[in-house]
Amino acid sequence: MFPMSLTVAIASDHAGFALKEYIREKFAYMPVTWLDLGTYSPDRVDYPDFGHKLAQAVASGQVSWGVAICGSGIGISIACNRHAGVRAALCTDARMAELARAHNDANVLCLGERLTPPEQALDMIKVFLTSAFEGGRHIARIEKLG
Amino acid sequence: MFPMSLTVAIASDHAGFALKEYIREKFAYMPVTWLDLGTYSPDRVDYPDFGHKLAQAVASGQVSWGVAICGSGIGISIACNRHAGVRAALCTDARMAELARAHNDANVLCLGERLTPPEQALDMIKVFLTSAFEGGRHIARIEKLG
Repeated sequence: MFPMSLTVAIASDHAGFALKEYIREKFAYMPVTWLDLGTYSPDRVDYPDFGHKLAQAVASGQVSWGVAICGSGIGISIACNRHAGVRAALCTDARMAELARAHNDANVLCLGERLTPPEQALDMIKVFLTSAFEGGRHIARIEKLG
Repeated sequence: MFPMSLTVAIASDHAGFALKEYIREKFAYMPVTWLDLGTYSPDRVDYPDFGHKLAQAVASGQVSWGVAICGSGIGISIACNRHAGVRAALCTDARMAELARAHNDANVLCLGERLTPPEQALDMIKVFLTSAFEGGRHIARIEKLG
């Protein structure tokens, strides 16, 4: 269902730093190589810097997948979706993560560290990376997103 | 705290149509004039058409606020955030709606009809329209979103 080792970009601001580190250490459902785009400490930074950086990695084709985290997930999801070709889904449970893949062919999962318990984040990432896009009537809609 | 009648744009696809109609009929916390940008029936349409239309109304300054709805809220939030100056927050509870205003100065609230009970949607809109942006350190971040 997935390559031997899938490369997934991951980025956060300071408010998502602890969850980013947790995910990198604990995600064990499948072999993933994390491309860690920062931030690399809990010092205050600006979430758009990391959202734009991750979105550029996806939009350029450097990676096919991304996980972006800030306190609520809201700010970094706005930043990611500024970029054509990036479909960033802010999700608060696994059902949303599945819908994001099935209907929206989302390529970036956005999480809020304040809102998502760490264990649930692991489950959501598993669902996100293993759920298929349904295609069909959803294809023309994706194309209209740009 | 708010003008005598605040104008708020509202738009949905077919999967958010019932919630859009419910909101327009039932929202009674404060005087709001709804600028209804469609869809106007439950017939199938494409969510990006309505997300782009609502985002253009906000980006152009025609309105200051928007509510955008699709099945999960994910697709229409991506469409809205393609537009500079539009900060669309996909929220699943009132706490998120408050954070979206306080930290992100969000001007569009995105909802998923499948995920949000109608009464809760009314509460979230009230919180969204009456919560203030904190400013301060958040201003530079907003500017970096573009």
